[in-house]
Amino acid sequence: MTITITAFERSPDGGKGLARDTRVRWALEEAGLPFKVRHVSFRAMKEPAHLALHPFGQIPTYEEGNLVLFESGAIVLHIASRHAGLLPDDADARARAITWLFAALNTVEPPILELSIAKVLEGDKPWNEARMPLVKDRVRARLAQLSARLGAADWLDGAFSAGDLMMVSVLLRSRPSGILDEYPNLAAYAARGEARPAYKRAYEAQRRDAIAAGSPG
Amino acid sequence: MTITITAFERSPDGGKGLARDTRVRWALEEAGLPFKVRHVSFRAMKEPAHLALHPFGQIPTYEEGNLVLFESGAIVLHIASRHAGLLPDDADARARAITWLFAALNTVEPPILELSIAKVLEGDKPWNEARMPLVKDRVRARLAQLSARLGAADWLDGAFSAGDLMMVSVLLRSRPSGILDEYPNLAAYAARGEARPAYKRAYEAQRRDAIAAGSPG
Repeated sequence: MTITITAFERSPDGGKGLARDTRVRWALEEAGLPFKVRHVSFRAMKEPAHLALHPFGQIPTYEEGNLVLFESGAIVLHIASRHAGLLPDDADARARAITWLFAALNTVEPPILELSIAKVLEGDKPWNEARMPLVKDRVRARLAQLSARLGAADWLDGAFSAGDLMMVSVLLRSRPSGILDEYPNLAAYAARGEARPAYKRAYEAQRRDAIAAGSPG
Repeated sequence: MTITITAFERSPDGGKGLARDTRVRWALEEAGLPFKVRHVSFRAMKEPAHLALHPFGQIPTYEEGNLVLFESGAIVLHIASRHAGLLPDDADARARAITWLFAALNTVEPPILELSIAKVLEGDKPWNEARMPLVKDRVRARLAQLSARLGAADWLDGAFSAGDLMMVSVLLRSRPSGILDEYPNLAAYAARGEARPAYKRAYEAQRRDAIAAGSPG
């Protein structure tokens, strides 16, 4: 069955790979699955046809036959659960890898997202300069804990997994702020993710799409 | 094998059921699984013994034999995947229920958490009064979309699932602000969750613990 995902018609990051479709592309590339990409404009994302697929009017979505999913975490877990390469076989190790996937999305990403919101939606507010250090310190608090746990290991729990795929994807969103590079082992961990052939294919494909759509690239 | 979870020694909400151990207790009650609760002080949560279980120094954790998990989403999914009552049998319906679990944690909870952070960590800042309406409107934006999708249905996708368990848990955190009650179908949905016998058992148990620990209750 054909897999179709959605992505921004014009990615707000101009093809830097930080939009959430990149995570799904990466998982599909790791699993070796072919897929199609349908691009959605900001206007179309809020219209009934797209809201029927994604009630929160975002990307990515995932369509496979009659199955429609949204939420990058759910899509990556769906792919990882059904194809080799993204989750260990051992049941306990599998549960731990899924824990890291949730940790990436629910513990590490929220302060990073808050930093994006402070920049994009509150950048022009009178409080922004005074508030920004607090927001950045909340990102640092999480990254310091993650750095301590990762230590000198290559990946978070044994072999590369969907948990690492999501954690690297989330950490990359903190790189433009300079905070990721304050934690050399996390910066190296993210670079190990980026060096994977499947990541490179996913990154290049979304970048080609962004350039074709006229994003700054 | 005995299941042991961790919870706050003194819950910051004084037993209102908003701490994340309540979600895990609820899932365990729905699945009919016996479990023990170990209470952890704020100081002990940041010490090496607890950090070995939870790298971000939070609750809940889940121990079952040699398996150690953290992240309420991962724990609820682990319980739901292995026991009847929290996920449908049909593979597609199961994937959709898991999508709602992720949506609760990664799309609906972040703005609600941001509102808590604005109150608790930035309540004394000079910008708080001017900024609060923006933060509340970000919660409303998500709740309006969720309200539109739920419509007149009892649960998000067919029968009650782990996705509803998590969405109700997340929505309850928006009730103290008054925002939940602005969406009558969501308030009724949350009340349906609270009316489940398994929720009541979970709520009462955490409340008893909070009162025993001397929280305001």
